[in-house]
Amino acid sequence: MPDASGLVTIDDVRAAAGRLDGVAVRTPLVPAAWAGGELWLKPEGLQTTGAFKLRGAFNAVALLDDDERARGVVTHSSGNHAQALAWAAAAQGIPATVVMPDAAAPLKVAATRALGADVIMVPSAERDSRVEQLRTERGLTFISPFDHPGVIAGGGTVGLEIAADLPDVDTVLVPVGGGGLISGIAVAMAAAAPSARVVAVEPELAADLAESLARGERVRWDPERTYRTIADGVRLPVVGELTWRHIQAHVDEVVTVPEDAILAAMAAIATRGRIVAEPTGALTTAAFLTDPGRFGRSVAVVSGGNADPTLLAKVLMDAAGWTPRPASR
Amino acid sequence: MPDASGLVTIDDVRAAAGRLDGVAVRTPLVPAAWAGGELWLKPEGLQTTGAFKLRGAFNAVALLDDDERARGVVTHSSGNHAQALAWAAAAQGIPATVVMPDAAAPLKVAATRALGADVIMVPSAERDSRVEQLRTERGLTFISPFDHPGVIAGGGTVGLEIAADLPDVDTVLVPVGGGGLISGIAVAMAAAAPSARVVAVEPELAADLAESLARGERVRWDPERTYRTIADGVRLPVVGELTWRHIQAHVDEVVTVPEDAILAAMAAIATRGRIVAEPTGALTTAAFLTDPGRFGRSVAVVSGGNADPTLLAKVLMDAAGWTPRPASR
Repeated sequence: MPDASGLVTIDDVRAAAGRLDGVAVRTPLVPAAWAGGELWLKPEGLQTTGAFKLRGAFNAVALLDDDERARGVVTHSSGNHAQALAWAAAAQGIPATVVMPDAAAPLKVAATRALGADVIMVPSAERDSRVEQLRTERGLTFISPFDHPGVIAGGGTVGLEIAADLPDVDTVLVPVGGGGLISGIAVAMAAAAPSARVVAVEPELAADLAESLARGERVRWDPERTYRTIADGVRLPVVGELTWRHIQAHVDEVVTVPEDAILAAMAAIATRGRIVAEPTGALTTAAFLTDPGRFGRSVAVVSGGNADPTLLAKVLMDAAGWTPRPASR
Repeated sequence: MPDASGLVTIDDVRAAAGRLDGVAVRTPLVPAAWAGGELWLKPEGLQTTGAFKLRGAFNAVALLDDDERARGVVTHSSGNHAQALAWAAAAQGIPATVVMPDAAAPLKVAATRALGADVIMVPSAERDSRVEQLRTERGLTFISPFDHPGVIAGGGTVGLEIAADLPDVDTVLVPVGGGGLISGIAVAMAAAAPSARVVAVEPELAADLAESLARGERVRWDPERTYRTIADGVRLPVVGELTWRHIQAHVDEVVTVPEDAILAAMAAIATRGRIVAEPTGALTTAAFLTDPGRFGRSVAVVSGGNADPTLLAKVLMDAAGWTPRPASR
């Protein structure tokens, strides 16, 4: 359980690791000597649902009591958390409801339904009220995509594995949207590899955490701004309340990367690292490549691999110098 | 050491595993529920040089005595073994010479040189004679890409890991060119998971092993035939002498797959498995997808990830239903 300060503890993360043993893929560190420095990739896209989110969702569901399990869980997500919670709930035999915006990609809606979740489509503006309604009327337990101790502890198992595989790591680079993953990893590193620095990575176009840390308070960016980035996993307007406290306590630095660096990193990860990264998953490698000597022995957490196939094809062709011929003159 | 029959033993494979601990990436089994049956991928493209070849090359180099180490090693390869041996020799501080055909891809030549090997370009017809000359004149030790006990034992560590991670596996699908990988894996499975079937996979256009097993003797296909397949890792005209005896002793079946199935599997592995597979690496998934119920609980060894980026882009666009507009009418 969280400590007196309300923060997740290393014991919570270790307990999550026990629950995830045999459930989550034990992802290796993939050497990336091609990056021009000491870099290893942690390919979380190899998880069944294509992202690290499965770790936190499964752990949060496993923490429910019998009454909560009987009633079921609810969340809102248009992305990887939706599929992760659907999968985690199905794996533990409990009902899951996912509120998705009308504008969600049909493929992601279908994938979430295929995993057994009850998907409810709503206009974006009604997302929170609909979740609240489901909590009160049906007694469903809300599993936040990031601002939840069980979710944070589950994500923290990524850090435990990094510390076990590379105890003398200097820097762990972690993408930040709501902040759940970096909160958990930072707890793990502080205990298991305390000399490691934990560095947050954001797109320049969704740099609300950078601004928040500079000001010393949570700053919200309008979705109109954050939705400009191609890194759809980190378009959230602001980090969570609980994750903000973890970040203040444990995170050493935040760096931002431009959009073209994200796309170039996607191509490099595919062609040199032989891993498919979605744009959000490529953020950390993009940060490393900006200055390969700066971070020392580094691990880039490649948070997910659910890339749009045509986007991946495009970045590969761009990287290969392929130019489409005009359709007509 | 090989047993009285001359075959590699499980003790050889276990010794190789000890040498490779901390050297090769311990690749996970990646669940592939999307394949319509019980399938896991073994992503060997995550190795530093992008293919399983590093395991055998490193083990073979480690088995050399001091005199042999001082003189160095030689091989011929236009593909993944070239980079693997260059890397393995450099890692152990010994000189490596790689004879490559004039027609080898410039990128692969450059990559092999970048790993520190002395690359000698020759016309294809002079490949074997040049290797023989280097053996006799310079005393270099020849490390065959496949027909070498140390290389076979190193590849066998893939099988040990499969047996450890999925002890009740029914079928292990392995691509076959020269036969080194399947020989080692078959030795490992026979000892560590004896109920598992080991199934060889070839392209229809390079089905020399299928014909060999049907006839009960090694059959050679002309390179003019085998070079038709896009799976460039298995264009060898015939399996090796040593690997043939392992295959006869331990391999249960051989299946062949058409070219379009290989390309479709590349796309599926990238979009659903979030892994980059080269065509040869996609062979085994292609075989599984042909009949997902046939093989039971299966592991598809994805042997390598050194895919041409433009080919990968093309298969992704084809799978997404993207059709290029004509340049002119």
